[in-house]
Amino acid sequence: MRQWSRSMRAKGKTIGFVPTMGYLHEGHLSLLNEAHKHTQLIVVSVYVNPGQFSPNEDLSTYPSDFYGDIKKLMAVPGGVDVVFHPHNLYDYGNNNCGDDGNGLQKEGMREKDGVVVSCVEDKGLGHETWVRVERLEKGMCGKSRPVFFRGVATVVAKLFNIVEPDVAVFGKKDYQQWRIIRRMVRDLDFAVKVIGSEIVRDSDGLAMSSRNVHLSLEEREQALSINRSLSKAKCAAEKGQVNCRELRNSVIHAIHEAGGKIDYAEIVEQENLESVEEIKSPVVFCIAAWFGKVRLIDNMEISL
Amino acid sequence: MRQWSRSMRAKGKTIGFVPTMGYLHEGHLSLLNEAHKHTQLIVVSVYVNPGQFSPNEDLSTYPSDFYGDIKKLMAVPGGVDVVFHPHNLYDYGNNNCGDDGNGLQKEGMREKDGVVVSCVEDKGLGHETWVRVERLEKGMCGKSRPVFFRGVATVVAKLFNIVEPDVAVFGKKDYQQWRIIRRMVRDLDFAVKVIGSEIVRDSDGLAMSSRNVHLSLEEREQALSINRSLSKAKCAAEKGQVNCRELRNSVIHAIHEAGGKIDYAEIVEQENLESVEEIKSPVVFCIAAWFGKVRLIDNMEISL
Repeated sequence: MRQWSRSMRAKGKTIGFVPTMGYLHEGHLSLLNEAHKHTQLIVVSVYVNPGQFSPNEDLSTYPSDFYGDIKKLMAVPGGVDVVFHPHNLYDYGNNNCGDDGNGLQKEGMREKDGVVVSCVEDKGLGHETWVRVERLEKGMCGKSRPVFFRGVATVVAKLFNIVEPDVAVFGKKDYQQWRIIRRMVRDLDFAVKVIGSEIVRDSDGLAMSSRNVHLSLEEREQALSINRSLSKAKCAAEKGQVNCRELRNSVIHAIHEAGGKIDYAEIVEQENLESVEEIKSPVVFCIAAWFGKVRLIDNMEISL
Repeated sequence: MRQWSRSMRAKGKTIGFVPTMGYLHEGHLSLLNEAHKHTQLIVVSVYVNPGQFSPNEDLSTYPSDFYGDIKKLMAVPGGVDVVFHPHNLYDYGNNNCGDDGNGLQKEGMREKDGVVVSCVEDKGLGHETWVRVERLEKGMCGKSRPVFFRGVATVVAKLFNIVEPDVAVFGKKDYQQWRIIRRMVRDLDFAVKVIGSEIVRDSDGLAMSSRNVHLSLEEREQALSINRSLSKAKCAAEKGQVNCRELRNSVIHAIHEAGGKIDYAEIVEQENLESVEEIKSPVVFCIAAWFGKVRLIDNMEISL
């Protein structure tokens, strides 16, 4: 992979990179369109990263359809130059972790004595280096998924070192992830420009996600409450309601009424993700909620 | 810096890198000689990294002599192509940390409520991304210097991303550091080959260190006990004494007798740095000890 990037760079070409976990939808394809605006060549990675799942999460049921993905990528206007589909990024040839890149949960690796581990945790010569973006990783999704952002930042660092792109595009649907990657790139001096791409929604307003496939028809209908209530909150804010407690309560109420279970509903500063009580500067309203066994996230930027 | 590296790479040149904190001695110069064996071009960085010091450590008294360093580098056989001497690698233009790259200790930043911080810790938009090599960073020097290896791994990641070398040379005097950097490079897929270079000693056997300048004549004499006792232990092991408790006791006794205060004396596996009770496979005997106000480290590999 790196050899290709270096040979292209030697010819003066610029390289855009879109990391994905596969099961591609319109949201992913919009990231490719965004990448095409910035660079001559495009690399897409398709890799379900075990490092960002804890053993009690949905790694083994995470949807995948590699040949379907390839078909979609071949239809992208402007094309894709490389699909990077590594088998296992954590197999260093001398450890037991990450044997098959999937279904890595072992009995002994579940949460134990309060120490939360990821699916690639191992002893001895296994992977043990983690990139921590220590403040940004803590709030929101980091509360219920304590190894998640550690795993995301680490695999993105690995992928950046392997692909060596000039530009990388991330979706703003994963808002906290996007901010964490930007901060990591700044703090570790990666030679990569990180671009955030807007959320893509289905015609009914649901933010596109690979996990949507697991929703029943009823759950999907319920899940529309997220975007509807966020849009209402944005409207209310623009009309002068800047009290975050009020705005949050109305969204929590609406999602709860619809049958969802809130994980968090927070209004935070756009760059630092610090909670705010009153909207004075640009904020983002971030939501995570469960519908049945599916956890969805969504968000809306509010810049008055 | 990166532009230079990329222009050289585009010409097919290979780049060797020797990161230092300056105040160069024969030990550093031996790293350059080692680098010259592997690459056509050599970059040396001179940067005292505040990120690896905690506020109660010796950042403000760490010796420096940049023009003396330049003179030494100009005399190196084969030469040096770039001296990279950044002012401050943690100033992102919007934070209060790392104002002058030195003397960053602020009253409010000392160890507080048991949370150990480094000299670049800050709130808000400051540096917050740390590379953790989670098992290797814990033992030996990591016990008494809890932010040290986090800071070292992080600044080396930054420097690798800025310099983009093909090969980097580290001294095996900082044995744990060398192993941590190798592990980080493997785990994060850096495109850098890490070479370990042998310890350089003064004619009296003392391992070269920038900190040696702080030793009084008497302390220096006392400090010779480290190398003497390590050499004896190696001899004893080669003659059949493989009991680590015995070997450690004799070294601890000798250093203590000489007037040193032991921080740690451990016999560990060479790659994983796990303590061993009996020497069966290649090990390294690692020592840290105080002589007056100066903390010295040294080690000796023992491969029976």
